[in-house]
Amino acid sequence: MSMNYDKINDWILREDSFDAAHLGKCEAIMSLGNGYLGLRSAAEEKYLNETRGLLINGTFNKFDPTAVTELPNVPDMTAVELWIDGIRFNLEQGEVEQYSKELNIRTAELTREIVWAAPNGKKVKLAFRRVVSLSRIHDFCIHMDITALSDDMEVKVSSGIDGRVTNTGAQHFTDGEKRFYDGRYIQYVPVTTESQITFVENTVHRFVKNGSEIDVPIQVNMDTRNVYGVYQIAVAAGETLTIEKYCNVYTTRDLDVQDKTVAELQQYSLAQLKEQEQMGYDAVAAETADAWEEKVWNRIPITIEGNEYDQFAIRFAQYHMQMMVPAHDNRMNIGAKGLSGEGYRGHCFWDTEIFLLPYYMFTQPETARKLEEYRYYSLPGAHSKAAHNGYEGAMFPWESAWLDDGEVTPEFQGVDIVTGLPIKVWSGFIEQHITADVAFGVWQYYAITGDQDYMDKFGYELIFDTARFWVSRLEDTCRQIIESVNPETGVTEFSETVTNDGLYHICDVVGPDEYKEHKTDNAFTNYLAVWNIRKAMEYYNLLKESNPDLFDALNAKLSLDDYYKQWCEKVDKVFLPVPGETGILPQDSTYLTLQDIDLSKYKQQDHVNGIFRDYNLTQINQIQVSKQADVLVLFFLLEEMFPHEVKEATWKYYAERTLHDSSLSFCTHAVLAADMREKDMAYDFFEKSANIDLGPVMTSSNAGIHAASFGGIWQGVVYGFGGVRMLGGKLRIDPYLPEEWTRLQYTIIWQGQNLQVEVTRDMVTVTNLTGTASVELELCGTPCELEKTITSKLTA
Amino acid sequence: MSMNYDKINDWILREDSFDAAHLGKCEAIMSLGNGYLGLRSAAEEKYLNETRGLLINGTFNKFDPTAVTELPNVPDMTAVELWIDGIRFNLEQGEVEQYSKELNIRTAELTREIVWAAPNGKKVKLAFRRVVSLSRIHDFCIHMDITALSDDMEVKVSSGIDGRVTNTGAQHFTDGEKRFYDGRYIQYVPVTTESQITFVENTVHRFVKNGSEIDVPIQVNMDTRNVYGVYQIAVAAGETLTIEKYCNVYTTRDLDVQDKTVAELQQYSLAQLKEQEQMGYDAVAAETADAWEEKVWNRIPITIEGNEYDQFAIRFAQYHMQMMVPAHDNRMNIGAKGLSGEGYRGHCFWDTEIFLLPYYMFTQPETARKLEEYRYYSLPGAHSKAAHNGYEGAMFPWESAWLDDGEVTPEFQGVDIVTGLPIKVWSGFIEQHITADVAFGVWQYYAITGDQDYMDKFGYELIFDTARFWVSRLEDTCRQIIESVNPETGVTEFSETVTNDGLYHICDVVGPDEYKEHKTDNAFTNYLAVWNIRKAMEYYNLLKESNPDLFDALNAKLSLDDYYKQWCEKVDKVFLPVPGETGILPQDSTYLTLQDIDLSKYKQQDHVNGIFRDYNLTQINQIQVSKQADVLVLFFLLEEMFPHEVKEATWKYYAERTLHDSSLSFCTHAVLAADMREKDMAYDFFEKSANIDLGPVMTSSNAGIHAASFGGIWQGVVYGFGGVRMLGGKLRIDPYLPEEWTRLQYTIIWQGQNLQVEVTRDMVTVTNLTGTASVELELCGTPCELEKTITSKLTA
Repeated sequence: MSMNYDKINDWILREDSFDAAHLGKCEAIMSLGNGYLGLRSAAEEKYLNETRGLLINGTFNKFDPTAVTELPNVPDMTAVELWIDGIRFNLEQGEVEQYSKELNIRTAELTREIVWAAPNGKKVKLAFRRVVSLSRIHDFCIHMDITALSDDMEVKVSSGIDGRVTNTGAQHFTDGEKRFYDGRYIQYVPVTTESQITFVENTVHRFVKNGSEIDVPIQVNMDTRNVYGVYQIAVAAGETLTIEKYCNVYTTRDLDVQDKTVAELQQYSLAQLKEQEQMGYDAVAAETADAWEEKVWNRIPITIEGNEYDQFAIRFAQYHMQMMVPAHDNRMNIGAKGLSGEGYRGHCFWDTEIFLLPYYMFTQPETARKLEEYRYYSLPGAHSKAAHNGYEGAMFPWESAWLDDGEVTPEFQGVDIVTGLPIKVWSGFIEQHITADVAFGVWQYYAITGDQDYMDKFGYELIFDTARFWVSRLEDTCRQIIESVNPETGVTEFSETVTNDGLYHICDVVGPDEYKEHKTDNAFTNYLAVWNIRKAMEYYNLLKESNPDLFDALNAKLSLDDYYKQWCEKVDKVFLPVPGETGILPQDSTYLTLQDIDLSKYKQQDHVNGIFRDYNLTQINQIQVSKQADVLVLFFLLEEMFPHEVKEATWKYYAERTLHDSSLSFCTHAVLAADMREKDMAYDFFEKSANIDLGPVMTSSNAGIHAASFGGIWQGVVYGFGGVRMLGGKLRIDPYLPEEWTRLQYTIIWQGQNLQVEVTRDMVTVTNLTGTASVELELCGTPCELEKTITSKLTA
Repeated sequence: MSMNYDKINDWILREDSFDAAHLGKCEAIMSLGNGYLGLRSAAEEKYLNETRGLLINGTFNKFDPTAVTELPNVPDMTAVELWIDGIRFNLEQGEVEQYSKELNIRTAELTREIVWAAPNGKKVKLAFRRVVSLSRIHDFCIHMDITALSDDMEVKVSSGIDGRVTNTGAQHFTDGEKRFYDGRYIQYVPVTTESQITFVENTVHRFVKNGSEIDVPIQVNMDTRNVYGVYQIAVAAGETLTIEKYCNVYTTRDLDVQDKTVAELQQYSLAQLKEQEQMGYDAVAAETADAWEEKVWNRIPITIEGNEYDQFAIRFAQYHMQMMVPAHDNRMNIGAKGLSGEGYRGHCFWDTEIFLLPYYMFTQPETARKLEEYRYYSLPGAHSKAAHNGYEGAMFPWESAWLDDGEVTPEFQGVDIVTGLPIKVWSGFIEQHITADVAFGVWQYYAITGDQDYMDKFGYELIFDTARFWVSRLEDTCRQIIESVNPETGVTEFSETVTNDGLYHICDVVGPDEYKEHKTDNAFTNYLAVWNIRKAMEYYNLLKESNPDLFDALNAKLSLDDYYKQWCEKVDKVFLPVPGETGILPQDSTYLTLQDIDLSKYKQQDHVNGIFRDYNLTQINQIQVSKQADVLVLFFLLEEMFPHEVKEATWKYYAERTLHDSSLSFCTHAVLAADMREKDMAYDFFEKSANIDLGPVMTSSNAGIHAASFGGIWQGVVYGFGGVRMLGGKLRIDPYLPEEWTRLQYTIIWQGQNLQVEVTRDMVTVTNLTGTASVELELCGTPCELEKTITSKLTA
């Protein structure tokens, strides 16, 4: 029931005892994947509170017209039920004499070793291994050794493909075509009910005893949504029975099989399964380990010396960022829970641009480009959202799924303790900063990678189209929304006051801090909107000059000349909150005037959202309390715009009022604290951010890992202590080590040059490993030109 | 894990130890219900392999266009999860020191008594009681006493309404509106996805300690498809905490709330819940016990002396026949598993007419009429099936659900061991005797009840309309279907030979014996079809004479004059199989010529369908093996048409070749054996039929009880040993006791007169308890006129 970090030096995360009440944690944080598919690490044997999960990126389906689209939980192939002399193997009965579940993040192999005495006293040793191939993205396989330790035993195995799994009760598939081939290959062909994506799943079992394959008669079964074989094998005392289960999955949405009909795909995937079976488990596992070495560990090595947990944490973050990212397909993005659980339904948020993209941009630019292309191909959804809301240009959805889905944020979440009604989620309607975040992501990507091709094909258009939205979004009066509760119905109602100050405002929004709804002039939103418009103006002029053909095409498509006039007219008149005498930048027009309450109770709780058990959102809206970093993210993105004193005062003020009820909060705080040289605080926030999934709390990862927090861990290391930042299009490196570390080494790719940065307590060395171009950067406050290696002294 | 019959004299069926591997048996056979709703008796605490089930009769929904409609599993209200000092209460861990689960069939109350030591050593006694109201059909409630036996303890309770349940993975509901009222009443309003039936479910919890109600703070929760409260209560050593959970369910399909909008229904049902809560558990349970006494035990008493198990078995059958029958609504019928499980999807079959209807006709004619009206209101489905198949009149579906659904038999079931493909289910296409069965049911109902009003409004039309089908179904050539397997695809293909003998044939059918497909001139089908046509001809002439207005109306509607001509022309020319020299009536045109194999292996198996593990259906089709009674059912229905020697020889021949792989088989054999005075055999078959659900086999009732078999048990008692039969419209009573019994007493209602029949070893006494009319009957072979009481001597 608890995480064990004894083997983290060997890259191994371990659970050292079994607790049926806390299965979700390791299912999620030990999940396997390759960006195409994600597989929760549920045990082979079944448990009541397990959540099995096989998610295929981009295969969204909408259960019914009242539901939002989500990534469907695909019919399961990981369950292998065992009976020892008729007793179902599971760790809730009998004696568990030995237990360990391990994820080796270097090889991406999941293992379990168990010694179990069945209630009848017979003892058995079980060794499970499981791997999801990184190079053959459709494949995964399971290897099981069952050793009869004490007595002869009859082992019964029931295993196949089980379509009875759901997403928390929602079934996304029609009961598919089922078939046994050659009396052993099992195929199931379910189809998503609404998006009509056909899945082809195949599996086969191989049995080995005393080193040689044995022929085990299959008893075939086809039930509703379930197709499986039952096998009986006598195992004598001392003997080991090996069961291998090879699996693959294809869908008609996959780019690599677009040329095939369903019938062809059935045959092709079956042939592929036979090929995998031919390779054998060990070869698949070895190939996978090699692929991880090549794609991640050799290519993006990060060394932290002085603290083994932190070293493991950054690699663990890299592990997850690799297995969740759809590097194979530019029509999909990263869900808020990666591919490790049903939480957030596989939707992507601003998490990609603000928290995850930096990692990919600085280490795998080709993958970052795919993620950025996704935003371009999602423009149809952004246009329809804008039109639907009476705006122009591209208004990106707060939650995003398939390309033309548009907004997919659910409308309700949780219960209002005062009214007994569901809580309305306003993000999909009025959390609008996402559109500027997308534009900011484009610019970041361009600045860091120098990928002009991307800009020409996608980037400029995205910047223009989002700026078109913002200028249409500006309001020429200042509305303040007033919430009140109808005493009869218990329903929250809204009214507004309107004033006119000759400026443009953005009213009735939710900023990054989701505990403040219907606010006017959220600083983050307004500054980013203005940034977006100014960036569009800059590119308008630049492109007109440097690439008139492209300019003409985009001008014709987007009426840039018209919009440019509007941008010029309005951009300087947008209200931008400024700090008062206290030096504190107001989060929005009312935050600093709200009631202050004692928040210590909620800060001490080890679960999030505890405040909702005492207050409803209408009440929370009237309190100076923040869910997560808000203004602080603005400081982080547009660092150069704010003086140090303002940052410090503002930081202190909001930090006291922030509950960190979002996994996006700690990392931002960690980086900003590092920027301000608040060493201890920075390290403390970094540790908290590292612990979000990896730490000992056994419940918070149940619905899946916190994808963005892994980007946050990387940012804590490379942006925070590593001191890296892209500022105004330029590279800055200004590192230092926390007390706990003795050495930090990482690599980043800046405009095609792979730079290795080594930080010790008193020195930083930057080496251009690529060396095909010189790199301009500011190192520890000094602008310099890096040819091969450059060093700088650090002061403590 | 085993059934205990120690308390059957107290009307109590008991399970005396817990086995997580065999939950389905008692969930199904101990299920509670009232014809409106059926509630599987899953435990309050959850288990991996449980199947919770709340089914509301008639609320069919189709998951998707590829699925057949089914009775959806309604969001659950029976789960109440408990934690004792943070340890989840469940019997798979800790020590179970005492366990019993009991169903009292007299009071229809389910109870469980458990003494459990948690893994932390703390001991607790739990007493659960549960009742589904018989008079307030929307209501049920749970009563739980939790006594801290050894230590103080913290009890945590999580309970509400859980919409994550599915039908084997198929979700039939949209995630509904959720609400807490007054901080304690929980309401959930899911809607079926296709049939668009809105359900309103309500529940509330009440806590009592030391005899007085206590106020327990609720922690409210609304997750996806789940709305529930969490409560924490400290219980000191020796104290008893009582938790009561009141529940109700309404749907927009219910006749009693047709006048209400959904919003009104939400308020109304909530008010009803408050009323139930006011009554309290004990009052609801007492009212329910009274209702059972009045409706069943006082009204339809059956006494078997000499064997307690048999006495219990017949009451157990009555219990189930009461709780499954929709006496409240003529738009629905009885599913093959009643309301006790998802098996057969809530569809009704010929089971109603042939196996269940006799019970209701002879004991609750008003209920029987509802079931017969259902067939009339289902005519739209029967007409469309006929039209779709190129026939005329009413072709009833083999499986029937909502009134206009027509045929709903699934197309595939199980796997062909030879080809690896799913097995095609031909019943929905060619098991056509159901249409004659429906007509036969009408006639039986009329003859037994004398309900002329039913005949005038529904019955004649049904007889005519089914006869219209049959005459259109007759073929003027004799086709023999030949099956062969395509060696390339493995798929079975069909060809035919055609001969012409001047007679009419019914070719390519499945008879009652479903191990014989695509057969020509199935005896049961042909005889019943001819019977149907002749009955229509009889009524044509009768009605023309006796009720010309009705005749004219029906003639105009159904073109009776035209059809009468066809009936006259063809009815004598229909081929009817006759016994050869051996005296054996051929089941169809080829059965007697097929290969004979040694069937002993399959006869000895304690599970059904074992033969499919060695042969596929194409092969079984070529073997003299029967799934169930076929010709024997014909003997049973049209007894007067066949001489004793033929019955005897035929019986013997098929009995040897019948695997009883259908629960409909034993009871038919029991009654026929009794008719033939094969005492031991009759009793043996009767016991087997009584054991189908009540017996010790722990797996065969998982998907629900075998509804028709309960009718079969009643037939075994009243038709078999009790000697009752309606023959040619007349009542016959010709009883005798098996060795095991010393006395049998039952009542039947014959044309409005309630007759009590007492059978001892040497005497039968028939008493007309109603006594408002004399009854003509044949008693022990002697025609007589019953005024008040009549006795007859029995010879051993």
